[in-house]
Amino acid sequence: MFEKEYDVIVVGAGHAGAEAAAASANLGSKTLLVTMNLQTIGQMSCNPAMGGIAKGQIVREIDALGGYSGIVSDKSAIQFKMLNKSKGPAMWSPRTQNDRMRFAEEWRMALENTPNVDFYQEMVSGLLVENGRAVGVKTSLGLDIRSRSVVLTNGTFLNGLIHIGDKQFGGGRAGEKAATGITEQLVELGFESGRMKTGTPPRVDGRSLDYSVMIPQPGDVVPEKFSYSDTKALTHQRDCYMTHTSLLVHDLLREGFDRSPMFNGRIKSLGPRYCPSIEDKINRFADKDSHQLFVEPEGWNTVEVYVNGFSTSLPEDVQYKALKSVKGFENVKFFRPGYAIEYDYFPPTQLKHTLETKLIDNLYFAGQINGTTGYEEAASQGLMAGINAHLKINDKESFILNRDEAYIGVLVDDLITKGTEEPYRMFTSRAEYRTLLRQDNADLRLTPRSYEMGLAKKDRLDKMEEKERKSNAFIEFFRETSFKPDDINPILESVDSSKVRQPDKMFKVFSRPRVTMDHMLQLEEVSAFVSENNLDREILEQAEIQVKYSGYIAKEKNNADKLQRLENIKIPKGFDYSKLKSLSYEAREKLKAIQPVTISQASRISGVSPSDISVLLVYMGR
Amino acid sequence: MFEKEYDVIVVGAGHAGAEAAAASANLGSKTLLVTMNLQTIGQMSCNPAMGGIAKGQIVREIDALGGYSGIVSDKSAIQFKMLNKSKGPAMWSPRTQNDRMRFAEEWRMALENTPNVDFYQEMVSGLLVENGRAVGVKTSLGLDIRSRSVVLTNGTFLNGLIHIGDKQFGGGRAGEKAATGITEQLVELGFESGRMKTGTPPRVDGRSLDYSVMIPQPGDVVPEKFSYSDTKALTHQRDCYMTHTSLLVHDLLREGFDRSPMFNGRIKSLGPRYCPSIEDKINRFADKDSHQLFVEPEGWNTVEVYVNGFSTSLPEDVQYKALKSVKGFENVKFFRPGYAIEYDYFPPTQLKHTLETKLIDNLYFAGQINGTTGYEEAASQGLMAGINAHLKINDKESFILNRDEAYIGVLVDDLITKGTEEPYRMFTSRAEYRTLLRQDNADLRLTPRSYEMGLAKKDRLDKMEEKERKSNAFIEFFRETSFKPDDINPILESVDSSKVRQPDKMFKVFSRPRVTMDHMLQLEEVSAFVSENNLDREILEQAEIQVKYSGYIAKEKNNADKLQRLENIKIPKGFDYSKLKSLSYEAREKLKAIQPVTISQASRISGVSPSDISVLLVYMGR
Repeated sequence: MFEKEYDVIVVGAGHAGAEAAAASANLGSKTLLVTMNLQTIGQMSCNPAMGGIAKGQIVREIDALGGYSGIVSDKSAIQFKMLNKSKGPAMWSPRTQNDRMRFAEEWRMALENTPNVDFYQEMVSGLLVENGRAVGVKTSLGLDIRSRSVVLTNGTFLNGLIHIGDKQFGGGRAGEKAATGITEQLVELGFESGRMKTGTPPRVDGRSLDYSVMIPQPGDVVPEKFSYSDTKALTHQRDCYMTHTSLLVHDLLREGFDRSPMFNGRIKSLGPRYCPSIEDKINRFADKDSHQLFVEPEGWNTVEVYVNGFSTSLPEDVQYKALKSVKGFENVKFFRPGYAIEYDYFPPTQLKHTLETKLIDNLYFAGQINGTTGYEEAASQGLMAGINAHLKINDKESFILNRDEAYIGVLVDDLITKGTEEPYRMFTSRAEYRTLLRQDNADLRLTPRSYEMGLAKKDRLDKMEEKERKSNAFIEFFRETSFKPDDINPILESVDSSKVRQPDKMFKVFSRPRVTMDHMLQLEEVSAFVSENNLDREILEQAEIQVKYSGYIAKEKNNADKLQRLENIKIPKGFDYSKLKSLSYEAREKLKAIQPVTISQASRISGVSPSDISVLLVYMGR
Repeated sequence: MFEKEYDVIVVGAGHAGAEAAAASANLGSKTLLVTMNLQTIGQMSCNPAMGGIAKGQIVREIDALGGYSGIVSDKSAIQFKMLNKSKGPAMWSPRTQNDRMRFAEEWRMALENTPNVDFYQEMVSGLLVENGRAVGVKTSLGLDIRSRSVVLTNGTFLNGLIHIGDKQFGGGRAGEKAATGITEQLVELGFESGRMKTGTPPRVDGRSLDYSVMIPQPGDVVPEKFSYSDTKALTHQRDCYMTHTSLLVHDLLREGFDRSPMFNGRIKSLGPRYCPSIEDKINRFADKDSHQLFVEPEGWNTVEVYVNGFSTSLPEDVQYKALKSVKGFENVKFFRPGYAIEYDYFPPTQLKHTLETKLIDNLYFAGQINGTTGYEEAASQGLMAGINAHLKINDKESFILNRDEAYIGVLVDDLITKGTEEPYRMFTSRAEYRTLLRQDNADLRLTPRSYEMGLAKKDRLDKMEEKERKSNAFIEFFRETSFKPDDINPILESVDSSKVRQPDKMFKVFSRPRVTMDHMLQLEEVSAFVSENNLDREILEQAEIQVKYSGYIAKEKNNADKLQRLENIKIPKGFDYSKLKSLSYEAREKLKAIQPVTISQASRISGVSPSDISVLLVYMGR
């Protein structure tokens, strides 16, 4: 009924599954995407937005590697914002509001237009495993579909249990069935599983809100976009709105606490710490009078609205009474209540850097099944799993991103090295080299590697190389061209910087604080160079960042290189730690469990001390 | 949490529910639409097409009354065909292929833009009934939502059970949950319930088909549209394709018969006779070598394809093996298999002409819950239920269409008078006055009545009145204007009609067989009248039909009027048939059960003979 043997079967068609299928197919693997409902490919299950702090960088990285999330987001965007623009460029984070329906439609079209992707609608209820190797899936109707590798991206569907107040019922999302069978089989095969929890706010009728008392949150005046490819920037946008909870709202919510599954012990698993429910927020920050709420439209045309910041599993009547007391929500009408959902995950220390499981060959996990939260985290894991599933069955070297190369590298390394006991979300603070891992240079960092591996296409590489060439030439221009003091001094004065007496290289004054590209463009030679070389906004920005942050960037590169040396010291596979008696007991146990592949990875395991690392270094011959 | 009391709650948001909600809201009732999943409003659960024989007339009628199905179909159409154009105008039937995703989106937008419609996502698990009257619904999470009336449009969801081969599982549609609770409560309240069955074919990957060996089925060269309003006709269209089964295909299907739930007794309920599964077709018509299959695209852009004619609940591997042997399907890839579904319905003899139940006041049923099949049948019932729910709570006269006014009148009267034991589908043969019930005059028949009742808007009436005025004037022109023999004789000769010698009224020759409007337009006076009065295609067609079929039309009108007299003889409510000893036993029982409201309705009950009618006529004072 199917290909005699697919190369890759991807289970689930959310952000992780969709990227996984696209990647393996684009690399040349015959790929089957199996999902319970083909009409829900690329669903945004929670907020209608992509990117944001650290997450926006991930979307840019996915795009630079040749994934689809950036393109799909651009095509379905209704608003674009570059967050943190007032801070240094390492903090700049792109974010879109999206049309939920369009987003799903664009994903479906993208996948349909990917030649090697086949589709099948059914629930996968188990794996085919032979000789410790995944060789396909079983469906709930009893079909066996064979493949050379399997990527599981089950999201919140594995034994999903939805909570609203004291009610609970099975389901993978509101209105959709849960998936059963896979967890049970994996546990039998020796996997450790756990439960996690996440939640979502009510959806309401935008016609029932009074926007005139809320604070408009428009998009950027000059909207940019996620993809380095030729997607279009928005020409018009929809506003979001901000409003606030109050002490009264908090009191009304507290009235339901005895019926809250979060507080009465019914939900035992941990939810995302940085995306807490509203009841969690007023409980943990009891001294705060007010929390922000963002009112986000669900699309270009729909009246449905997402109440960001009001995630809750309190009883429906409590949700309603409290939300009604929020400014602008006095006449609110609910489309559906918020809810919490518990689901199975597998502690990700059971994975290799390729996201292949250690226990079963050619079986990959990506997304919430690994204990992460967030569309972007899921999508990037899907991409990496899809890539590596393809590479392995073709006996090619695996594709692993280091921590100084990409947020995706940080994400995967954190997951498999440290594991996670609560839904893992990316932050800039998780990256030790965040000055290197900027949203503006994801293409420079990753497109050449992806091109070499085979995923990114030539036109992507060409575009990136042109950007690199032009911005380097521009930086070189600043290094080599001298200014005249009479030209530059008025500028320096205007920003309260000390004047110069002698001509010197432009690079030098441009490096000064408060001197910006806009200032430099006032110099005739600079503006002439720009127009002669036809430099666009992106090049100007790239050059400015590299000039102004050259010190930081160089320093971090240096640190990264140092650590890279540790990264290069490999630990032999199956190394017997018990013979190193000088290791601490805890370090021995953790090292045995995690099986790090390099000294550097070993150093990041909690419980492994610097002295343990010294022992390893001595033994490994340094 | 909701309006203290809604006027109308509609349960379900398919074709019936969406029309019901739109109608009651547009009439001024505060309406709540409750559905298990707000993302599946207006789903085309089966084929991606609207209209067809008799069904197309219904869509036109819905539109003429101010319902939305015609508008939504026009906006989401990818192909338009006027079927039966070679037959008389009573048989002309408009049909569209639709983009499944767009269709649902247009419905959702239409409802969101209907001010009195509120939305809520949850499963309704029961009714609130007080003193024999529906006063709201209960949700599965335990909410009570109060209303003055309730319309149930549950489709295939009530205890839905999906069959594929020897597998069966609960579900309202593939990938969606079934609904429970309502049937059980209604049976407890005294309703009789039954089970029906329907089915759907596999969806396949269009990229895997060889269209070059199939027969293209393009849309009309000059596509028309459903709605009398100002929707646009298509400027480009997508083709469908035709192919055929073969003896080999039939043999391959037969191999699975022992595992077929249709034949091994697992499915006990009856399916739609005129939309049989492929296994049913080859079983019932064992002498046929081949059956037609229509390959229908699911939208403008998607590669998903619907295999019309191949509905089946045979095991997946049998479906696959057989379909692979169909010409053009040699390399077919499945998106999902066909399946059968069994669900609860309530024999519709338990309803009044308003679709209100006889047992519980202010409770209405519409769509598959009444034992019908088809989007159009469902939509029209929803429209009528929504209208009458509104009218009743406002103490207004109910809105009932007679059998000589509309297919919708035939549909409702058939259902409540005769009941149905298999899924009821509309045919032109069910209408005794089908020469009156044409697709071209649904506006003339129904818009004035709907306007008077309050649903159709003034602009609809104005448009219809202009059409009526212009076509009447044009007919009048033919009645009053004489031709010159020299002008007309070449035309008559060309169609092999006998020549005339004397001048006479144009109407007379135009009435002749084979003389068409195109011929008449060759006369200078006619074409001058057309351009002076700015008559468009619709007017020309209307005038042509009325001239050429004036005899038939007049005859049928006359018959209808005669029967109308019986229609006017009302039977008192709760009439005691047991005192009429001269009625046959069977008639007495049936009359007691159905409780017809007129002698005419009584005459249509099976088992009530003409002599029984005479008895009633004598007793009722004639």
